[in-house]
Amino acid sequence: MTKSKYILLLAFHALFISSMIAQDLKTPTLEDLIPGGETYRYAENLYGLQWWGDQCVQPDIDKVELINFSNGKKQSITTRQKVNQTLQENGLDTISHFYNISFPSKDKKEMLFNVKGNYVVYNWGNHQVVSKRAYPSNAANRHYNDVSGNLAYTVDNNIYVNDQQVTNEPEGIVCGQSVHRSEFGIRNGIFWSPTGNKLAFYKMDESMVTEYPLVDITSRIADTNNIRYPMAGMTSHEVSVGVYNPSTGKTIYLNTGNPKDRYFTNISWSPNEDKIYLIEVNRDQNHAQLCEYDAATGNLDRVIFEEKHDKYVEPQYPIVFLPWNDKQFIYQSQKDGFNHLYLYNIDGTLVKQLTQGDWLVQEVLGFNTKTKEVIIASTELSPLQRNTYRVNIANGKRNLIGNADGVHRAALSNSGEYIIDNYSTPTVARNIEIVRAKDNRSQLLLTAENPYKDFVMPNIQTGTIKAADGVTDLYYRLITPSNLDSTKQHPAVVYVYGGPHAQMVTNGFQNGARGWDLYMANKGYVVFSIDNRGSSNRGLDFENATFRNLGIEEGKDQAEGAKFLQSLPYVDGERIGVHGWSFGGHMTTALLLRYPEIFKVGVAGGPVIDWKYYEIMYGERYMDQPENNAEGYEATNLNNLAGNLKGRLLMIHDDHDDTCVPQHALSFMKACIDARTYPDLFIYPNHKHNVMGRDRIHLHETITRYFEDHLNNKK
Amino acid sequence: MTKSKYILLLAFHALFISSMIAQDLKTPTLEDLIPGGETYRYAENLYGLQWWGDQCVQPDIDKVELINFSNGKKQSITTRQKVNQTLQENGLDTISHFYNISFPSKDKKEMLFNVKGNYVVYNWGNHQVVSKRAYPSNAANRHYNDVSGNLAYTVDNNIYVNDQQVTNEPEGIVCGQSVHRSEFGIRNGIFWSPTGNKLAFYKMDESMVTEYPLVDITSRIADTNNIRYPMAGMTSHEVSVGVYNPSTGKTIYLNTGNPKDRYFTNISWSPNEDKIYLIEVNRDQNHAQLCEYDAATGNLDRVIFEEKHDKYVEPQYPIVFLPWNDKQFIYQSQKDGFNHLYLYNIDGTLVKQLTQGDWLVQEVLGFNTKTKEVIIASTELSPLQRNTYRVNIANGKRNLIGNADGVHRAALSNSGEYIIDNYSTPTVARNIEIVRAKDNRSQLLLTAENPYKDFVMPNIQTGTIKAADGVTDLYYRLITPSNLDSTKQHPAVVYVYGGPHAQMVTNGFQNGARGWDLYMANKGYVVFSIDNRGSSNRGLDFENATFRNLGIEEGKDQAEGAKFLQSLPYVDGERIGVHGWSFGGHMTTALLLRYPEIFKVGVAGGPVIDWKYYEIMYGERYMDQPENNAEGYEATNLNNLAGNLKGRLLMIHDDHDDTCVPQHALSFMKACIDARTYPDLFIYPNHKHNVMGRDRIHLHETITRYFEDHLNNKK
Repeated sequence: MTKSKYILLLAFHALFISSMIAQDLKTPTLEDLIPGGETYRYAENLYGLQWWGDQCVQPDIDKVELINFSNGKKQSITTRQKVNQTLQENGLDTISHFYNISFPSKDKKEMLFNVKGNYVVYNWGNHQVVSKRAYPSNAANRHYNDVSGNLAYTVDNNIYVNDQQVTNEPEGIVCGQSVHRSEFGIRNGIFWSPTGNKLAFYKMDESMVTEYPLVDITSRIADTNNIRYPMAGMTSHEVSVGVYNPSTGKTIYLNTGNPKDRYFTNISWSPNEDKIYLIEVNRDQNHAQLCEYDAATGNLDRVIFEEKHDKYVEPQYPIVFLPWNDKQFIYQSQKDGFNHLYLYNIDGTLVKQLTQGDWLVQEVLGFNTKTKEVIIASTELSPLQRNTYRVNIANGKRNLIGNADGVHRAALSNSGEYIIDNYSTPTVARNIEIVRAKDNRSQLLLTAENPYKDFVMPNIQTGTIKAADGVTDLYYRLITPSNLDSTKQHPAVVYVYGGPHAQMVTNGFQNGARGWDLYMANKGYVVFSIDNRGSSNRGLDFENATFRNLGIEEGKDQAEGAKFLQSLPYVDGERIGVHGWSFGGHMTTALLLRYPEIFKVGVAGGPVIDWKYYEIMYGERYMDQPENNAEGYEATNLNNLAGNLKGRLLMIHDDHDDTCVPQHALSFMKACIDARTYPDLFIYPNHKHNVMGRDRIHLHETITRYFEDHLNNKK
Repeated sequence: MTKSKYILLLAFHALFISSMIAQDLKTPTLEDLIPGGETYRYAENLYGLQWWGDQCVQPDIDKVELINFSNGKKQSITTRQKVNQTLQENGLDTISHFYNISFPSKDKKEMLFNVKGNYVVYNWGNHQVVSKRAYPSNAANRHYNDVSGNLAYTVDNNIYVNDQQVTNEPEGIVCGQSVHRSEFGIRNGIFWSPTGNKLAFYKMDESMVTEYPLVDITSRIADTNNIRYPMAGMTSHEVSVGVYNPSTGKTIYLNTGNPKDRYFTNISWSPNEDKIYLIEVNRDQNHAQLCEYDAATGNLDRVIFEEKHDKYVEPQYPIVFLPWNDKQFIYQSQKDGFNHLYLYNIDGTLVKQLTQGDWLVQEVLGFNTKTKEVIIASTELSPLQRNTYRVNIANGKRNLIGNADGVHRAALSNSGEYIIDNYSTPTVARNIEIVRAKDNRSQLLLTAENPYKDFVMPNIQTGTIKAADGVTDLYYRLITPSNLDSTKQHPAVVYVYGGPHAQMVTNGFQNGARGWDLYMANKGYVVFSIDNRGSSNRGLDFENATFRNLGIEEGKDQAEGAKFLQSLPYVDGERIGVHGWSFGGHMTTALLLRYPEIFKVGVAGGPVIDWKYYEIMYGERYMDQPENNAEGYEATNLNNLAGNLKGRLLMIHDDHDDTCVPQHALSFMKACIDARTYPDLFIYPNHKHNVMGRDRIHLHETITRYFEDHLNNKK
């Protein structure tokens, strides 16, 4: 795009905005814009909206209502008063709202909720407590099985079922919790069989993992919180999978064999509960095996199939059996370059590839058993989007459910014939509709008011430029001040993440812009983000272009983005700053060190500085082990580049960061001191990897102030 | 002083300096000015200059020379070549210079030195090794007794004599090292009896003291170095005194009784080696007892006398027996308001006060047995000075030895008839003379060249203003740029310490100005220091005015200093900054919080923020225990004032600071975050309480940059 075209466009914006200002719009503060702020403006929502069978249910504080799909009318099924009366008669604690209820049965008039110390199934037809299940006050990771009514939970590092202690392990061995540092899609450590008659669970021995000391300065005398942190190349934890049978009280462990430091991922049960499936990944993470184990003996039945890749494989989704055929399952793989669905027979023979194309499946949402369709979320319409499709298993035909815009989160009804479609678009913060899959007929439940309708808001636009490879399209988001004077030179700030598993630019509300981006644009900065190669939703080749050299190709793309910024007539090319957190903290630091002629001021939060200080699971996937990739570790170790620091760099780290440990930032300080360069530093005490809650406002004022001090004052 | 007078004075300076610049003076860098800098300019010195009996000896690299007092002529007594030849013949390691030799005998031709693994006594008359004493390579705290040739040392936490292990204590109990965190003048833990036949030593049980975790980020994965750090009000360590007899191999401990957390200070031996004297201080530090113990049994013979004070007593000097009368000793006390000498009989009866006046004795240097004089250093001529006097024990008459200027360090000859007088004045970096006490006849050995003679140097002046009490004189030092334009408004920086035991303004070289002070003045700042009430060399009332409220009166005096600065025509009263370290870090922070209208920018290094995080020994002396002075602790806790921060404050802390633990700075960060104020922070990894060595240059560049960013750019 030529400069003149931009000038025209911006002249229009300037006119448009100045008329809006005349209406006395308020300028939003960080408190308005940042989650945790006292006046943060959440988009309206319908909390707890869900399905009871195929009926949409809207919980509220005092009542629960069914919503009629045809006319949107609501009908109360029960009130809090009634429920609490019954609970009190049963000697149970009361509920203060209905937002956390769920429906264990598709047709019985039963709701499940949690009162202090008990799971309660309540029948709203006869106002009876159907069942209750008690748990102690220190129970964590609670998993209630709807069918059996069994409850599994952890106390400290051990697992319990219905008050029976299942494991009795010492400190250093953790049961029933997420393992492998929650990579490979792992989110928890408790897996009920479909009917809740058996429980699979993770046991992680991390006693051999080196402890990292995090210092708590809020105690009378500072105290150490040691975390077991497995660093790249070092000894890893060892995970096993237990199977507990509540009816016998017996536990067996799967015989997963050697080596012990493999990854045991994506646990799932066979529909008949006799088998357990794992996707096992070697430590190098270039070889995955779908394994079937006998749930009674723990023996390996067979390796159903395997998948290899020169760079890495990254299974993130358990296999899912077809509800109508327990001999066939769906397996997700990026083996053709994009995450797609494959239908397999249980013997490991491929039936067919269900989806295909230069786009990817983001999630399997469920099935419609009647139409024999699988319902998915995918990027088929745009890499910036997430839309819902039904895919016919027999013929592969795909049909969009809901509209073609934006970013959709769908919740399927029991039959799969309806979805609750919660979505946003660049200009709509949230729409919630019930959509009937077969004809896309919809019932609108909510269009959220723009949370910033009374505020001055900058202009947001998106577009593409070419990556440093000259071929690949990269999506950017450009935010300009509402009162942009295109004849003046504005400082620009790049907000960067840049790592895998994330995407900054979307077709969601405000194109994914963060509150701080808007704040800075309102202060007169041009704010820019671009999703470089290595980021998500663009397929495997796009992502793994960075293999063994994290940050380098990504930086080249960000430099292209900055050059684009410099081409804009209203951007002062000598005043480009950059800010990012975590991987984005690495990128920020790397950009200042590798492109000092472009990036003059940076604020790097919770950065990775040297990948050898990062965890094994994520780190070795992309970087291999240090001893196998010494060159890559050297090239990407920003401590080696500390002498290049010319601009102003503020590094921020949290002293309880258990994701990127403080060693990253502090080792960089030491490297700079040794090299006689001069970074700035700030520490947020008692925060983990991100500064959350109220202090997040303070953080963003600190970040802002740094750019105001060093980028904006150079006018 | 009126403003016009200043203007005249400065106009003169401006003329004077501009003519100097014409001579192509260099502008000194931080490397030139800060110790640790690659080009740091030490004043010339005569290393190892000392006495052999009454003969002055000057060691060199290749030879040792005697200096004739009358004519200054030098005569070599031996050469390195000769000594090393003998050493090699004896299978010993060689020496690379003579700077570390000493003379165990006043008349024998014997010198003592240390070669790898051995103490060696060498006779330069017959070129023989007289004796050698071996020690292992991990021996520390080595104390060699000249008379007996016995050697005591420590390995880890235990003590050894001549390779015999004396103590065998587990981790947490430390023997033979300094105790009570080196307060009360304590510098080591090994005390030979005069002839080296018995050894007194400290044993410190600190197993009950809470550990503070210091994190070392330079190891592969960050590791914790725990230090036993007794914080104010918490459980203290327990010290006992052992007595070891090398001839029997037996150790006894003094029966010091209860309570255990008292202070056992200022160990000394009776001349006949039968008795040991301690000055015992209660934990409240307001009651001292001079105690005599039987060195054979460890039993307390008697309390010779005691001393109490409403605020605190602080014995810092062991008693010293008169060389010609082993029934009389000199005791130092501030009981009349200034540290003076008192002569006591061994039975505890006072013979007389030996010195008296509104000045204080700084050190007892020794005696002249012939004239029955004690030689002292004192502030009699000026509180900014240290001069040498001989005091006649019989009649109290004092005579100055050496000249009346500056700051003198004197080393007595064996008889006490001569001193080596090493001194500086505001304009002379170092003079070294031999002075004969009886007639002040002197032999000049060295006048050091001005290390900055080729450099642009600012103007330094001193003066007094009244303290905040309106009565007390306070001494200041004012440094102005060499090219001061008195018609312009200059930013000013106050360098502050402010705590007890230290003095910033002296009549030593450059009036005690530090390299950074000169650097900043050269950059155009007016640099100012003033010794507030609470600082040293002004007597007890001056010091203890701050009791139970450290930092508050001190701050009032510093504010007076700043107002004086604001009265100067060439100072921009709106641009006053402040910098200090340790107690000075506390002061810097306190001044920004308590006087935000005066102090706009500060750099606080290694500060105390909350006295409850500081150590028991120093902290409770001045602040009492937190439970006994809750009000004082609250009032002086700067975390309570975090919300007052308006200016710019950079706080710097070292991550291995075992004096002011990092909890100080980090708790202040948290307090400011909670209060939504915005300090800056920097951390120097792997440094203790001060950034030393090469990194000290980096530190001062960081400090400078902060003032340049925030104080100087507001022109």
